[in-house]
Amino acid sequence: MESNINSPLPKAVVILSGGLDSTVALAIAVRHHYNAHALSFFYGQRHAVELQHATEIARYYGIKHEIVDIASIVKLVSNSALTNSRIQVPEGHYTSENMKVTVVPNRNAIMLSIAYGYAMNIGADSVWAGMHAGDHAIYPDCRPQFITQFEGMETTALDTVIKLQTPFINKTKSDIVKWGDIYHAPMNLTWSCYKGGDKHCGRCATCVERAEAFHLAGVTDPTEYEDPTYWKTVCNG
Amino acid sequence: MESNINSPLPKAVVILSGGLDSTVALAIAVRHHYNAHALSFFYGQRHAVELQHATEIARYYGIKHEIVDIASIVKLVSNSALTNSRIQVPEGHYTSENMKVTVVPNRNAIMLSIAYGYAMNIGADSVWAGMHAGDHAIYPDCRPQFITQFEGMETTALDTVIKLQTPFINKTKSDIVKWGDIYHAPMNLTWSCYKGGDKHCGRCATCVERAEAFHLAGVTDPTEYEDPTYWKTVCNG
Repeated sequence: MESNINSPLPKAVVILSGGLDSTVALAIAVRHHYNAHALSFFYGQRHAVELQHATEIARYYGIKHEIVDIASIVKLVSNSALTNSRIQVPEGHYTSENMKVTVVPNRNAIMLSIAYGYAMNIGADSVWAGMHAGDHAIYPDCRPQFITQFEGMETTALDTVIKLQTPFINKTKSDIVKWGDIYHAPMNLTWSCYKGGDKHCGRCATCVERAEAFHLAGVTDPTEYEDPTYWKTVCNG
Repeated sequence: MESNINSPLPKAVVILSGGLDSTVALAIAVRHHYNAHALSFFYGQRHAVELQHATEIARYYGIKHEIVDIASIVKLVSNSALTNSRIQVPEGHYTSENMKVTVVPNRNAIMLSIAYGYAMNIGADSVWAGMHAGDHAIYPDCRPQFITQFEGMETTALDTVIKLQTPFINKTKSDIVKWGDIYHAPMNLTWSCYKGGDKHCGRCATCVERAEAFHLAGVTDPTEYEDPTYWKTVCNG
């Protein structure tokens, strides 16, 4: 219980997927004395288990947690592998090609605009999101220029400044793990696997990226993988 | 039947509320030879009758029409009179005070980001929206600067240019009625009333604004009002 809903601290909306990045972002917000409000999105993802992890993480911090259903929106905008069971989730390391399969067009603008509406409603002065440098190559809406433009657009839209905090915008996944360690983020409660089984599969691109990130950060990986060594065969780390 | 879903014409997403402004915007898009796709939002509005009118208008033009349910999002961001039956809808002419009651925080950024995702998915090269100069005073997200910034943000987010067409951004409501007349928009099929009865009430701020706009434009008002003369008592037109 590290934060409190009725706290006099400045409020922050933290987009929390239940994955590593957003959980470490939340840990930082909490440690920097924000009264954090977690916001998750159900977008019809096959790995909805992520949201259960988001709920556990919010409970760990004793903070308010809202889950918004945007499945109908995602259906309108996308034929992504994240939500369409006919498309096969790619295995192995992330590449430009297999990452494209998991793109939901305009996802960040949609989620962030909802988060900004929520921030406005509760009087928060910042919105936190966990996108990182590793996302830049394929996802243009994870780049610093997008963040700057989005924040500027919202300043006009709302006639007030709500800061868009993206602590990892120029950081790698292994930096995030290092920060998670420093900030005592409950990384053991996070979920990355795109396949949505009982354990992390260890073979999909997010599992490989996760295992490699812990290795590169020199932090013990608390994750139980179905296939705990596969990542070594596809990484040079 | 003025447009066709399988047309080779450039595609456009037109946000269609079922009101005057968006219907005239649609009429312009169709007349300018766009293959228009109408997009409406159900946001828990009390006057959901608007959406039935949107459906009739899309049918009139023979175009594809999607309705997206964003009620849970609006609930998260708002305690607006548009969706909350405990808040009384203001009567009389629009003023700064009574317009504020109907604000849903960040509504335009949320709706437009969804429209942009849809545009990206279907390969449209423009998104059309009907905001007009009369909205500027109270709604910062109806101002030209917002439109420019939003379009720029999306160009980065999507790595492609999708034009944000707002033909009325510097026009008045009566200009819209004039254009509706010129472009043969089915203004008789549109709905403005915030009260959501069988007929337009003639007393709420949108009814008053509507009746006045037809009067100022010198165009015969096809609307049947419960109280057809009330607007004259609160307008100087």
